Amino acid sequence: MYRTLFLFLTLFSLSMSSVVSQEYATYVNPFIGTSNYGATFPGPITPRGMASITPFNVAGKQNKLEKDSRWHSTPYVNENTFLTGFSQVNLSGVGCPDLGVILVMPTTGEVETNHLKYGTTYSNEIAKAGYYSNTLDKYQVKTEFTASKRVGVSKFTFPKGQSNILLNLGLGLTNEEGAMVQIISPTEIEGMRSVGSFCYNSPEDAYPVYFVAKFSKPADKFGAWKKPRTYEGEEAKWMTYNGKTRIMEQTTKMVVGDSIGSYFSYHFDKEETIEVKIGVSYVSIKNARENLETETANKSFDAIYKDTFNEWNTLLSRVKVKGGTEEDKINFYTALYHTLIHPNTLNDSNGDYPEIKTGKTGHTSGTRYTVFSLWDTYRNLHQLMSLVYPEQQSDMVKNMLSMYDENGWLPKWELNSTETFTMVGDPAGIVIADTYLKGIQDFDVQKAYKAMLKSANQLDNNPLRPGLKNYLEKGYLTTDDGGSVSTTQEYNASDYAIAVLAKKLGKKNDYKTYKKRSISYRKLFDKSFKLLRPRNSDGSFYKPFDPLAGANFTKSVGFIEGNAWQYAFMAPHDINGLIKLMGGDKSFVKQLQKVFDDNQFDMANEPDIAYPFLFNYVKGEAWRSQKLVRELSNQYFQNKPAGLPGNDDTGTMSAWLVYAMMGIYPASIGDNVYQITSPVFDAIEIQLDNKYYSGKTLKITTKNNSKENRYIQSIKLNNKTLNRYYVTHEELVNGAVLELEMGNQPKK
Amino acid sequence: MYRTLFLFLTLFSLSMSSVVSQEYATYVNPFIGTSNYGATFPGPITPRGMASITPFNVAGKQNKLEKDSRWHSTPYVNENTFLTGFSQVNLSGVGCPDLGVILVMPTTGEVETNHLKYGTTYSNEIAKAGYYSNTLDKYQVKTEFTASKRVGVSKFTFPKGQSNILLNLGLGLTNEEGAMVQIISPTEIEGMRSVGSFCYNSPEDAYPVYFVAKFSKPADKFGAWKKPRTYEGEEAKWMTYNGKTRIMEQTTKMVVGDSIGSYFSYHFDKEETIEVKIGVSYVSIKNARENLETETANKSFDAIYKDTFNEWNTLLSRVKVKGGTEEDKINFYTALYHTLIHPNTLNDSNGDYPEIKTGKTGHTSGTRYTVFSLWDTYRNLHQLMSLVYPEQQSDMVKNMLSMYDENGWLPKWELNSTETFTMVGDPAGIVIADTYLKGIQDFDVQKAYKAMLKSANQLDNNPLRPGLKNYLEKGYLTTDDGGSVSTTQEYNASDYAIAVLAKKLGKKNDYKTYKKRSISYRKLFDKSFKLLRPRNSDGSFYKPFDPLAGANFTKSVGFIEGNAWQYAFMAPHDINGLIKLMGGDKSFVKQLQKVFDDNQFDMANEPDIAYPFLFNYVKGEAWRSQKLVRELSNQYFQNKPAGLPGNDDTGTMSAWLVYAMMGIYPASIGDNVYQITSPVFDAIEIQLDNKYYSGKTLKITTKNNSKENRYIQSIKLNNKTLNRYYVTHEELVNGAVLELEMGNQPKK
Repeated sequence: MYRTLFLFLTLFSLSMSSVVSQEYATYVNPFIGTSNYGATFPGPITPRGMASITPFNVAGKQNKLEKDSRWHSTPYVNENTFLTGFSQVNLSGVGCPDLGVILVMPTTGEVETNHLKYGTTYSNEIAKAGYYSNTLDKYQVKTEFTASKRVGVSKFTFPKGQSNILLNLGLGLTNEEGAMVQIISPTEIEGMRSVGSFCYNSPEDAYPVYFVAKFSKPADKFGAWKKPRTYEGEEAKWMTYNGKTRIMEQTTKMVVGDSIGSYFSYHFDKEETIEVKIGVSYVSIKNARENLETETANKSFDAIYKDTFNEWNTLLSRVKVKGGTEEDKINFYTALYHTLIHPNTLNDSNGDYPEIKTGKTGHTSGTRYTVFSLWDTYRNLHQLMSLVYPEQQSDMVKNMLSMYDENGWLPKWELNSTETFTMVGDPAGIVIADTYLKGIQDFDVQKAYKAMLKSANQLDNNPLRPGLKNYLEKGYLTTDDGGSVSTTQEYNASDYAIAVLAKKLGKKNDYKTYKKRSISYRKLFDKSFKLLRPRNSDGSFYKPFDPLAGANFTKSVGFIEGNAWQYAFMAPHDINGLIKLMGGDKSFVKQLQKVFDDNQFDMANEPDIAYPFLFNYVKGEAWRSQKLVRELSNQYFQNKPAGLPGNDDTGTMSAWLVYAMMGIYPASIGDNVYQITSPVFDAIEIQLDNKYYSGKTLKITTKNNSKENRYIQSIKLNNKTLNRYYVTHEELVNGAVLELEMGNQPKK
Repeated sequence: MYRTLFLFLTLFSLSMSSVVSQEYATYVNPFIGTSNYGATFPGPITPRGMASITPFNVAGKQNKLEKDSRWHSTPYVNENTFLTGFSQVNLSGVGCPDLGVILVMPTTGEVETNHLKYGTTYSNEIAKAGYYSNTLDKYQVKTEFTASKRVGVSKFTFPKGQSNILLNLGLGLTNEEGAMVQIISPTEIEGMRSVGSFCYNSPEDAYPVYFVAKFSKPADKFGAWKKPRTYEGEEAKWMTYNGKTRIMEQTTKMVVGDSIGSYFSYHFDKEETIEVKIGVSYVSIKNARENLETETANKSFDAIYKDTFNEWNTLLSRVKVKGGTEEDKINFYTALYHTLIHPNTLNDSNGDYPEIKTGKTGHTSGTRYTVFSLWDTYRNLHQLMSLVYPEQQSDMVKNMLSMYDENGWLPKWELNSTETFTMVGDPAGIVIADTYLKGIQDFDVQKAYKAMLKSANQLDNNPLRPGLKNYLEKGYLTTDDGGSVSTTQEYNASDYAIAVLAKKLGKKNDYKTYKKRSISYRKLFDKSFKLLRPRNSDGSFYKPFDPLAGANFTKSVGFIEGNAWQYAFMAPHDINGLIKLMGGDKSFVKQLQKVFDDNQFDMANEPDIAYPFLFNYVKGEAWRSQKLVRELSNQYFQNKPAGLPGNDDTGTMSAWLVYAMMGIYPASIGDNVYQITSPVFDAIEIQLDNKYYSGKTLKITTKNNSKENRYIQSIKLNNKTLNRYYVTHEELVNGAVLELEMGNQPKK
């Protein structure tokens, strides 16, 4: 880890010196989150790219974290050392294994197809926005990678002698198997790799990633390999090749199997460089080829990298920060970078994409995004997109409605047009309502509303809201249902989203109905504990009740990925109601502080991540939020591979940090406000969109800000003193100037 | 077997009554050879067709002969009863399992993908040239099949209710695995199935059969299935679907795996008929589609069947027989039919074909044939083709030279452009020289000669003649080499072919050299046994020597698939020399008769199949040949499923019968003569080709011919008495009229 980091910083400093200060993309350190289960990857990707490349170092017992030894969700772990290829499609910051396939690997000498034998350690790792490089120790091959939106681009510098480029379609992060490969010519390979079964769910929805690979130089020799399964019948005694890898030299025929690959071999008289472009598609090989041609034909590695870097720079520079340390900027822009990876592009350059569930090919003139980890992202990531990248957020909502058109349901945890049904709740409507409230309204809101009502009310065959019958009859799910307390809280939040949207749409009765439904979680409040507690189907509280059970992903009755303490304050639509329920301000603050004091707060999981901001709701207690947010940011988010608290959750953790460092946070649902805490920087400027918003610049500035001066002394909004610790979205997007006077003493 | 045969004969008689007598194709009984390891299949194929369909009944323990329980080479066994589909590419009369894939299966009710569950018994089997039908007992579905050259055509008559058409790409006869399938629309499926590793050889040459299936009615529902291998890693505990078949409903994505398939489902209100056309190609899916369109677009099942029947009829009627029994005609025309299956067409309708070894796609304006089982077919099948179908034989020789161009070597046992290296010897040159001698000379004979010399002389890396060094130095292979005696005999015969071609080409020195080389087998003659006997590398005879060892495919030193008796007379190029070696006429006849008397003669394997004709070489002993050939024909070749002596060996056994029943046989090499024995029929007329030959009719007639009158009393050739028991090829193709006077007493 030290080695890597040291190198990165050294090279980073070098590159920093050669760029102008406006190049915000140079602050991105893609190594952040590549340890401590952050599950990010260090390789290149464009903003919301379909293709990405990462070193793949999770196979082989030499590695500390081996992919098959546990529930392992990442293609790359920074402290691992044994590399077996570079995968061409990858997920960032997720908690389940998938993708991490189509492994390209340069080697030298004789062709060796067993990854445990051809694998190698590596040195000289460099990762930047849109670029990754290392040197393979065993082969002394320099690798470099960049990517356009749908094409991964590799550049290998080989020593003289025999060199090989393997395309391993067997090895991968996904637990799905099966691939096809066909060498089309000495410069071109096409094929597919099966992926899917994300979180070990929906294996019947496993699907192909199609690809076309083009090489800058024709191979002197080529071939494919196949390792068949071991045949166990009577005839095995004649099959001398039973279960053994077979090499098919110069084959141009289609090869299929669970463990297959292809190789291109070269004989070089001197050091030589080869570029490999791999276009991908989830629709067809034809489209993969078209993606490749459209994006990279006749374009050099350097030109592609430059364009990708510029694309990052353009997007990241929508938020300009001043002040703070270099580390602060690295942490900030890397976090912003991580929020711009997922949801990512699913459609091909011609607009084709696989529809969800129908088996048909859909077509979009805009962007069809995928990877909607909504249980995570409804809490802050989509709000951040709405604020800074509303044109993207608009597309994402439109995508959700397209999914509803295709599949009959809004998405829950959508991945490449498969619904993985991961996690609980019915989060899409919360995102849709919030987006609409924020002024992004260029979507069919009536359809959206209809879709939200469907999942809120359809009792039978409702894939989004299991346990709905109990919820509607009793107001809560019972211990007969899974995660009864958590899920009740989630459904409440979703119902509140329906209520606020109903109000906006003038549906007064619906507003009342769903507002009432949204506070039914209160029935689970146990005064004796001042906590939410599971109830049995007869209405009695579940016994025995251990409020600590469920922490650290241990099993607990009533709670999903957390315990009663971690879920105690998750009523983002009813915070004032919750304060009353808890017995008023004093009791609420005492109980909330206890979460942190007793070390029950989990920075790495979503249910409680808004809690640090909730002290703002009690007069005179906002300083606690200011203190906590600074502390948590420093403790959990750092410029190092282990610099994320855990899974980035497709950017949710990173979105938390972006907001936290800017001093605003969307802790609530349906009221369109941001809680104000202490920004890290002297100034933050957000270039506001001019279609959805004012087109002005939102400015947040601080005076006397420092590590010690972490407490807000006074706030001015547009030059007028602000006597509250929140600011509305409307105020912000009209081009607010928010000035914070900082000091080292809490203002109580 | 009885059931089947009875039905066949009943229906056959019915159909016979409705056709005119010239329809020779009505005599074909495709059930002949479908038991007793004949390895033929009963389903439809055109002459030399690429596609064919056969009921597949060798999976499931219900069957007497289960494909995985032994070295099993047939997709269909007549006495088996449990049917699990209809395979679309098949080999006829071979001894190793391959092809027998792309299984189509109609079912009713819910979709069941496990062949052990969806399989069924069947009734009402009918098989004719170009047509097969049965009724599936479990589903009461009537099946009918026909084929054009590259397209298998299925017709299913379903009862009302839910019906399904499965396309099972997992199950198959080949031991190779791996397939791809993609549903393109509710009427079209494309994909591929891996095949190869014939005789458990050359697994690295395994290759795909590509296909496109078109359905006459759009499916109401469709899907694919995949049974993944069982994952055994740590994560198996979360994979509830581990190793289980998964159904992917309405998928149009590419699916790959070892055990996959697709289904189309229909809901019928009444009895309905669906036709399925499956085009195949060994080049590409595109070509499979083009084959389908070119041959069958807008053509009904009945029209395709009619054309295929006519094609058979046209070819079979080149030989017109009169007299004999109905059974004789059935045996004869079925045998001729079996000689017209392999070699079969490899090229697509556009001329594309996969080159051998190169990985490239070749192109032909004629026909590229495949399935050259030359160790078998050099002995009689190609001679029959040269006589009756010289235009085909010409193409076959040209194909061999193309293979030489592509691969650097003539073929040995070529299968779909893979060299399987099955059996021993270097037989291609024998076929080429014989074809040239027979007057079919429109090929590059200089190239052919060069190719023959190459395998005869290249010491290193010679795939055709292992052991060549010993052979050249000592005149024979030694016990250090495999099958030393047999292989020496084979190389001798091949060298003689070079000698006669050298003579024809005016290469006198070569003639001498190779003629000398061709008789080196004599060095293996052990006078004490009057048999050929293996020699050790020091020149001594191998001990102990058991002349009986090696029969019935048991292992023996020195002999391939046979024993010393079975190989004792295999000097087809030096029969007179062998007679001398044996000690003269008397000793030779005694020894030869002993082969038959001691039951050492094996009708089912090639080395000795010419022996019954060898008595013709000794004056006054020809009656023995006449007697034996009649007896063997009657004993081993009958109108019943077990009506072949064993593997048909891609028509070699059948060619034997065709010749035997016509009363001529090419028992020797290089002298262009046929031995005359007793024909079965009153008259045989062969329409001679007018490009290569005279265009006249070759007539063989008999007088007083009967079962008892099996001995030739006198022979007239073109109205002149013939005082010999052979006729030359030249005499025949000039339009000979050969008249035989028969009687019940041997003429000694």
